[in-house]
Amino acid sequence: MSQYWSDFVHQLEPYVPGEQPTMSKLVKLNTNEHPLGPSPKVIDAIREQADERLRLYPDPDSRQLKQAIADYYSGEGYGIQREQVFVGNGSDEVLAHLFLGFFKQDKPLLFPDITYSFYKVYCGLYQIDYQAVPLDDELAIAVDDYLKPNGGIIFPNPNAPTGRLLPLGEIERLLQANTDSLVVVDEAYIDFSSDRKGGDSAIALVNRYPNLLVTQTLSKSRSLAGLRIGLAVGDAALIDGLNRIKDSFNSYPLDRLAIAAGVAAFEDRAWFEKGCTLVIEQRDWLATQLAERGFQSLPSAANFLFTRHPQHSGAALAGGLREQGVIVRHFGKPARIADYLRITVGTAEQNQALIAALDTLL
Amino acid sequence: MSQYWSDFVHQLEPYVPGEQPTMSKLVKLNTNEHPLGPSPKVIDAIREQADERLRLYPDPDSRQLKQAIADYYSGEGYGIQREQVFVGNGSDEVLAHLFLGFFKQDKPLLFPDITYSFYKVYCGLYQIDYQAVPLDDELAIAVDDYLKPNGGIIFPNPNAPTGRLLPLGEIERLLQANTDSLVVVDEAYIDFSSDRKGGDSAIALVNRYPNLLVTQTLSKSRSLAGLRIGLAVGDAALIDGLNRIKDSFNSYPLDRLAIAAGVAAFEDRAWFEKGCTLVIEQRDWLATQLAERGFQSLPSAANFLFTRHPQHSGAALAGGLREQGVIVRHFGKPARIADYLRITVGTAEQNQALIAALDTLL
Repeated sequence: MSQYWSDFVHQLEPYVPGEQPTMSKLVKLNTNEHPLGPSPKVIDAIREQADERLRLYPDPDSRQLKQAIADYYSGEGYGIQREQVFVGNGSDEVLAHLFLGFFKQDKPLLFPDITYSFYKVYCGLYQIDYQAVPLDDELAIAVDDYLKPNGGIIFPNPNAPTGRLLPLGEIERLLQANTDSLVVVDEAYIDFSSDRKGGDSAIALVNRYPNLLVTQTLSKSRSLAGLRIGLAVGDAALIDGLNRIKDSFNSYPLDRLAIAAGVAAFEDRAWFEKGCTLVIEQRDWLATQLAERGFQSLPSAANFLFTRHPQHSGAALAGGLREQGVIVRHFGKPARIADYLRITVGTAEQNQALIAALDTLL
Repeated sequence: MSQYWSDFVHQLEPYVPGEQPTMSKLVKLNTNEHPLGPSPKVIDAIREQADERLRLYPDPDSRQLKQAIADYYSGEGYGIQREQVFVGNGSDEVLAHLFLGFFKQDKPLLFPDITYSFYKVYCGLYQIDYQAVPLDDELAIAVDDYLKPNGGIIFPNPNAPTGRLLPLGEIERLLQANTDSLVVVDEAYIDFSSDRKGGDSAIALVNRYPNLLVTQTLSKSRSLAGLRIGLAVGDAALIDGLNRIKDSFNSYPLDRLAIAAGVAAFEDRAWFEKGCTLVIEQRDWLATQLAERGFQSLPSAANFLFTRHPQHSGAALAGGLREQGVIVRHFGKPARIADYLRITVGTAEQNQALIAALDTLL
């Protein structure tokens, strides 16, 4: 610490990301990365952009990428305009901007007690008051628990680390009952929700609800965690607010390579669908294998399983796996999820290695 | 605007970056980009990294890049450790984090009245009190004007848009007199300061002054505006404060391609020096040509000239140049600089085109 820090810096409790080990030969199932690499067309787009033009600033508005996203969702039948799209340096940056831009209110922000742990970190950074709303007995979000005075509502759908999906009808019920504050649906994992591949996205609702903002990332279903691209879709007035924050923070959040890669990722629908199908098939296989061994998994709409074994502690299983070179995420707290492991769905080979390693521990 | 914005968003006055026109064939001398492209080794490093590893998150600490920067400045004789280096998504992100992390104080932040216009935008974003300290009659920073109670001091060196350099001895005098608050020296343009190529950097002082933080960018002298990489060097306790902010905002600010490119840029000293030499030679040529035509330019230590003509308004000159496809930056205010143009030093060909276009206007 230093006498030169602003006072509140001493109280910050920063987010702790999942470990990024540098040893090779690990079975890394701890940070929900995609088992396949990105589209070959994404790689081509990066190489094509990597030349002397890097001396020039990128488009500060990332218009090509916003248009590609609008076109993609318009192709889904949702009628999205470029002015309804915001992009940032990973969805974490998009989330940070929207916390400051929308959630600094007199009333508290509401989010689930078990959820993406960065939400309360943003509240610390921007000194935003919040209330954690407990998940129900099935570790699911119960919309009725959010029907009270608030300065905003945010939750991931599917929720993390539980993987549970809240149906669109329930989201719509919340939007109709909660018109005085903004509802943000954080869809980092939505494309794995079902065979409809993104068909459960609340982007379908943005043209009817000006109190809805939907965030997504290219780090999961589009396999670009290494690049950092996130987005938000909503009413143009909400996007305008995000632009005001962004233009007061960093004019050029996305570089030339990321813009080109993002465009290519949204254009290659076949690769995207192939990757989602692989993850869904492997998730089903893994869930079955775990169930046969006595594990209790929550129903997952994401690229991970949240699971526990009645006879083994989460800490012991995570430690035992690690000794065999298999890394999964174990949060340890709060008490209700102390025995759960969050296991990323990997390749068939990785998932088999995980099961083999578990078999030595049960 | 929207009822869902946080109250202060309505009052924000976002930064307006220099125009990034998409038409080709322009002589674009308005945003201080480097006339040469980046090192071919940087291009190679990007292409080598662009593969299926992009599915994996980058190192959240960008250790390889921090080490390359520490090694570079240690090679300059400054003895910098990796723990003294911070990196971010462009120096604008680094500046945003340090405004929040260090300058949110009871006393006002001090910076020059004519300077990088983003400083007061950050103050609006984070609701930081500031005082603008007038430049002296030669449009130079006078250290004595900063010797008063403050919650922090920041200025670019060389200053922008004036291009004037404050000698290291004056910075040291300020650091000795101002130990109760942090002094930030924003060295976006320092590598163009003289034939010593970065030899005027205050990084030489960081091991003696814990109240000093130095920021730099790879967008100017390392010709990577298209990638977005910035850095800060200072006492490890200051870097720790920046890390607390960064880890409360976005765990992974630099992507895999940017980290690899940044390492290669710091390793290729020959290309860097060739580029700085070209800019300095062309700056001298351009200054001479302008002087011969009656222009009055401030002495520049940057990759641009700040210049005016006693018989022509700045607005008329900028407009006349634009009609001929030559874009320079004209700020228009405050009144003291209303007639100045900020002209980026381009290639020999671009600079000749600029002079030819001016000759039609004088």
